[in-house]
Amino acid sequence: MIVADFTTIPMGTGTSASQYVQAVHELLNQSGIKFIAGPMSTAVEASSFEQLFEVIEEANKKLADMGVQRIVTSIHIDYRLDKDITIESKLGLSK
Amino acid sequence: MIVADFTTIPMGTGTSASQYVQAVHELLNQSGIKFIAGPMSTAVEASSFEQLFEVIEEANKKLADMGVQRIVTSIHIDYRLDKDITIESKLGLSK
Amino acid sequence: MIVADFTTIPMGTGTSASQYVQAVHELLNQSGIKFIAGPMSTAVEASSFEQLFEVIEEANKKLADMGVQRIVTSIHIDYRLDKDITIESKLGLSK
Amino acid sequence: MIVADFTTIPMGTGTSASQYVQAVHELLNQSGIKFIAGPMSTAVEASSFEQLFEVIEEANKKLADMGVQRIVTSIHIDYRLDKDITIESKLGLSK
Repeated sequence: MIVADFTTIPMGTGTSASQYVQAVHELLNQSGIKFIAGPMSTAVEASSFEQLFEVIEEANKKLADMGVQRIVTSIHIDYRLDKDITIESKLGLSK
Repeated sequence: MIVADFTTIPMGTGTSASQYVQAVHELLNQSGIKFIAGPMSTAVEASSFEQLFEVIEEANKKLADMGVQRIVTSIHIDYRLDKDITIESKLGLSK
Repeated sequence: MIVADFTTIPMGTGTSASQYVQAVHELLNQSGIKFIAGPMSTAVEASSFEQLFEVIEEANKKLADMGVQRIVTSIHIDYRLDKDITIESKLGLSK
Repeated sequence: MIVADFTTIPMGTGTSASQYVQAVHELLNQSGIKFIAGPMSTAVEASSFEQLFEVIEEANKKLADMGVQRIVTSIHIDYRLDKDITIESKLGLSK
């Protein structure tokens, strides 16, 4: 299991990004991927790199569809082979 | 008000970072800065760049005190001049 | 064209990461993707999200093959729809 | 010695950021800090956290002076206690 977080920053639009954040969350809800929204980024729990990268690409394409002409995406991925990780385990909510 | 998130990644230690994450959270608690722990990073709300950078430097020094010989810190800062932002407002918890 | 940079941080190994950086650069060389190594990250120029994500996944798998048990990857992607971008254009080397 | 890289992303302006990148480079030139411009970020070599954070705050203030109403800054810091690091050493240009 891979835990990651990402944020898609729209450029060339106004200072507010809330409509784009909301659109990405809707997309994540539809995709069925487990995620948790934070103040600076959205954390996701993916079964593979493919699943993670698919939602990130879809988020970019979604913003492009909404008219954003430049998108900077920042991603951090935690890929751990020695033990299973989940959003919950990384939040210290489970043992 | 500045909202930011950061993570301090220890290198040259074991694969587990939980003791270091815990130490940073204790330090943030003592500093009185408002923060929220996420699965991939810790978000903080700072009244100035100085306050933000002070806790990040302290977090690095804390890990060094614990024996970590190399620390990679990743930071994202949201500095907004057109309106007040807080952790809560960025989570959509207030209007 | 997408320009991005990324870094793969090994955890649970020694403080030195040079052998892993070198392995990732070899992999990029073999893949034929255009890249430029910087002091903190490696910038790549990709024709699609797929191509970008493929090399990042391969880099992770390479490090895992070398015995790294935990890998934190940090990525920034510049996806621009209003004009073509390249590593060179972003370095200001061409107009 | 600390090596870091950072990028300041303007929001609420046009899609082009070149004038802002140029302004930050001028500021770095004036500050005397050693830096190298990359396609996705600017790497700096700082003698202390204070020096690093000072230029990053100045870069934010510079963009604000130029009228940018929201700035997202992304930073990576390599803080190494077991050996001296420089931009050159991290580029593999010296031993």
